[in-house]
Amino acid sequence: MTLAPAAALLPLYRRLAGDYAQAMGLGTLRVGERMPSVRELMRRHQVSLSTALQLLRHLETQGHLEARPRVGYFVRDARTPASGALDLTSEPDLSQPVQPGAQAHFVGINEHISLLLERGRQAEVFLDVGGCTPPPALFDHKHLNQLVARLLREHPQLLVQGRSLLANQGNHPLFQQAMARRALASGIRVAPTDVLATTGNSEAVSLALAAVARPGDMVAVESPTYYGLLQVVESLQLQTLEIPCSPRTGLSIEALELAFQTQPRLKAVVVVPELQMPLGTRMPDAHKARLVALCAQYGAALIEDDSYGLFVEGSQPVKPLKAWDSVSGHVVYCQAFNKSLAPGLRQGWMNGGQWHGRIQMLKFAQSRNTQTLGQMVVAEVLGSPAHQRSLERLKAQLKAQREAMARLVARHFPVGTRMSLPAGGLCLWLELPEGFSSAQLFGDALAQGIRIAPGSMFSNSGRYEHCMRLACTHPVDATVDKAMQLLGSMACRQLGQAPRGA
Amino acid sequence: MTLAPAAALLPLYRRLAGDYAQAMGLGTLRVGERMPSVRELMRRHQVSLSTALQLLRHLETQGHLEARPRVGYFVRDARTPASGALDLTSEPDLSQPVQPGAQAHFVGINEHISLLLERGRQAEVFLDVGGCTPPPALFDHKHLNQLVARLLREHPQLLVQGRSLLANQGNHPLFQQAMARRALASGIRVAPTDVLATTGNSEAVSLALAAVARPGDMVAVESPTYYGLLQVVESLQLQTLEIPCSPRTGLSIEALELAFQTQPRLKAVVVVPELQMPLGTRMPDAHKARLVALCAQYGAALIEDDSYGLFVEGSQPVKPLKAWDSVSGHVVYCQAFNKSLAPGLRQGWMNGGQWHGRIQMLKFAQSRNTQTLGQMVVAEVLGSPAHQRSLERLKAQLKAQREAMARLVARHFPVGTRMSLPAGGLCLWLELPEGFSSAQLFGDALAQGIRIAPGSMFSNSGRYEHCMRLACTHPVDATVDKAMQLLGSMACRQLGQAPRGA
Repeated sequence: MTLAPAAALLPLYRRLAGDYAQAMGLGTLRVGERMPSVRELMRRHQVSLSTALQLLRHLETQGHLEARPRVGYFVRDARTPASGALDLTSEPDLSQPVQPGAQAHFVGINEHISLLLERGRQAEVFLDVGGCTPPPALFDHKHLNQLVARLLREHPQLLVQGRSLLANQGNHPLFQQAMARRALASGIRVAPTDVLATTGNSEAVSLALAAVARPGDMVAVESPTYYGLLQVVESLQLQTLEIPCSPRTGLSIEALELAFQTQPRLKAVVVVPELQMPLGTRMPDAHKARLVALCAQYGAALIEDDSYGLFVEGSQPVKPLKAWDSVSGHVVYCQAFNKSLAPGLRQGWMNGGQWHGRIQMLKFAQSRNTQTLGQMVVAEVLGSPAHQRSLERLKAQLKAQREAMARLVARHFPVGTRMSLPAGGLCLWLELPEGFSSAQLFGDALAQGIRIAPGSMFSNSGRYEHCMRLACTHPVDATVDKAMQLLGSMACRQLGQAPRGA
Repeated sequence: MTLAPAAALLPLYRRLAGDYAQAMGLGTLRVGERMPSVRELMRRHQVSLSTALQLLRHLETQGHLEARPRVGYFVRDARTPASGALDLTSEPDLSQPVQPGAQAHFVGINEHISLLLERGRQAEVFLDVGGCTPPPALFDHKHLNQLVARLLREHPQLLVQGRSLLANQGNHPLFQQAMARRALASGIRVAPTDVLATTGNSEAVSLALAAVARPGDMVAVESPTYYGLLQVVESLQLQTLEIPCSPRTGLSIEALELAFQTQPRLKAVVVVPELQMPLGTRMPDAHKARLVALCAQYGAALIEDDSYGLFVEGSQPVKPLKAWDSVSGHVVYCQAFNKSLAPGLRQGWMNGGQWHGRIQMLKFAQSRNTQTLGQMVVAEVLGSPAHQRSLERLKAQLKAQREAMARLVARHFPVGTRMSLPAGGLCLWLELPEGFSSAQLFGDALAQGIRIAPGSMFSNSGRYEHCMRLACTHPVDATVDKAMQLLGSMACRQLGQAPRGA
């Protein structure tokens, strides 16, 4: 097959996907037939695991393939529309070549992300739909301030007390008990003494990775993933392996299994099972069970970030991965309350499973105790009915804002835009037609005082250049409305479409 | 020369030192003659750099040698008593062999230290003379609590505010300005935007090392040093090179220079120039200038922990190493306020010099922003006259306690015990006669509810087994008096001496 000039600009997996799609169109590969395995693809095309996985994932996203658990990928009828969340408007327009260079792997993802964040910081921003922290007005600051005042009255020496108070490695017993009780309610058995207080979740995941992997080792992450995780992995001199995620079921267990089979240095998997960041996916319980079992089978650490489980809407209890880890202790559980309770406190906790002792040692070596005040505030607040009401209000507000933002996307964004419709949480994930550059929109929007989070922040593969994360943390008022109209028209202009819904 | 059975138990450097001391006694090496250089010693005896340095340092401590800056070590008349701080009582008794095994290098210093700390935690301790954090009563908690109340009144959303407030990488502008002003008063020019808020000092030093060195690289530290530093170095998978310290002038510049010449992977030096922990040494300004120049010459990072400069007694201003770093930016400056202002807040800051950008990136990746409340409290408190008065009171109290503890050591501890007499700070360093085991005293004392910090925590070489750090943070009352008497009598018993001053 010869390649048209435009196609030569495409990354390898896209060119291969084109070949396979053509083969399917020509009937060379028929509906129901099994695709070659990842290893077969690697051998046949002399490509890396990552490229082979991207190829399969791309064909799946395009509706050409379907994954059958534990068996493989099969050709499906591409004319049947794929079900799932990424289906607000029409299928993406694939006729445009992607921007050259957009597929390059960043030499330092940290540097790339830092530069984007820095540009965002230095600009005059009037609306930030990039960052996902709810604004102060959505929290109950009065209750918190009263609590701090009371704690300082009851424990006047709280701020001047060092380790002597805290026999427990810097962890306050009240905090440990409160976390252990919460955990039990989610089906996790953890002794209060095995609760380690952390500064938010970045520290927790960073400690977990430092404990279970050595420089040069590989860490499997969801793709796309939270950029902070890419930064942590790189800063620890580990290698990232991005595992495709389905918007319906989350991390592909099949792809992960193949990764284990081919990558002996794959030592850890980091997963956000509930309201995955940025896709918003809730992993089904059956998938959770399989994921926990698979990691146990390969002796890998499964690091669970459960900070968003708090935002799941509805009354059904949410069961963390850790609940399936009854024997081997290979699931490291991490949870932070900055986004649900008090962004200014940065309080979190973790249980390191079989690595808990080593994690405690690293924590103690690298930053000593976590501040006491934050632990006591969280311990007191979490149990209170006032906080439960406040969290329910926050969730209802976020739901309304997410729905309003989704309507604005549908109204103003280019034809062919698709988006996630998560069951809770702080953001939407948008996939615009190929040819759209979120990096360009980032610059154009910033010039207008609007900050967005371009797709390139969520992967080191360059495969989300046409995507972006849209925070739904702001109440949708006239300003947001106007900003969304502006963003939409700038995106339409990039794609040569007329502005919509003006 | 043949070795007596007891001598066979001695570590290599001690055996070599015995040979050299004998050679001096016999006149083979005469007073004023130059000792072989470190490299010559390494070649001649086929020993490591570390052993050669230990040999010279040991002969110097015993009064057989004196170091002449930039020239080398020379034989001196051992009968002239050495001047300096370690001279409270008589010279140590060297007739006893050291405990076998005590000289072994710990496989994991982290594990060794963690175990000691854990044993200390799990015991019923009524007096802790191991940890060096002043008790709450020595701080002005009322002033702090009032300040927190005022800050929460003036900024009611402080605890629920995320990054949006903090355009500056999580650093509060007020805090940055306050730190930059303080720095300027010490002769350091740092822009407010180049002030990075940290969680205490462990995080600062940990970030600095992660930024300047890669796993397998070597870090020079003072010997003895603060055990937390040994933990950080090991947790980052770096190698420690312990550089001898003189109780009068601090880190040996000569030894460090030799280390640079022989160790190409030596990338960083960590120094506490003022009130070195645990020796309490103040490095003379001339030494500081030479140290800064030497590190610049070899392109190494010089990481300065200036947290104890705040405790120097007297009114003369203290000049940090960073003040000499006018051009190359190779000094990383770190300062924490936990021990001088509020142990419960764990607030510190750093300026990373030429590595500042990388350090900021690592900090952001690994733990995101430092909490705002602590930054605001410190920024407000530091400038206040009330804090200045409170700090002066704290220093006066510590001085009185240190002197009282020194008197108790002189009264109760074995004949031959020597100790440091620092010009400020939180502790004394004791060197007991050879044959004394601080590990044994640690266990014996813990059984009586007293926690001490044994010498083995302050080095990975085992060379301080007969030493211990004694915290002077507690007001000396009848309990402390009795505990010191008990410690002294247990130490005497170990050495076969009768209890003293009972």
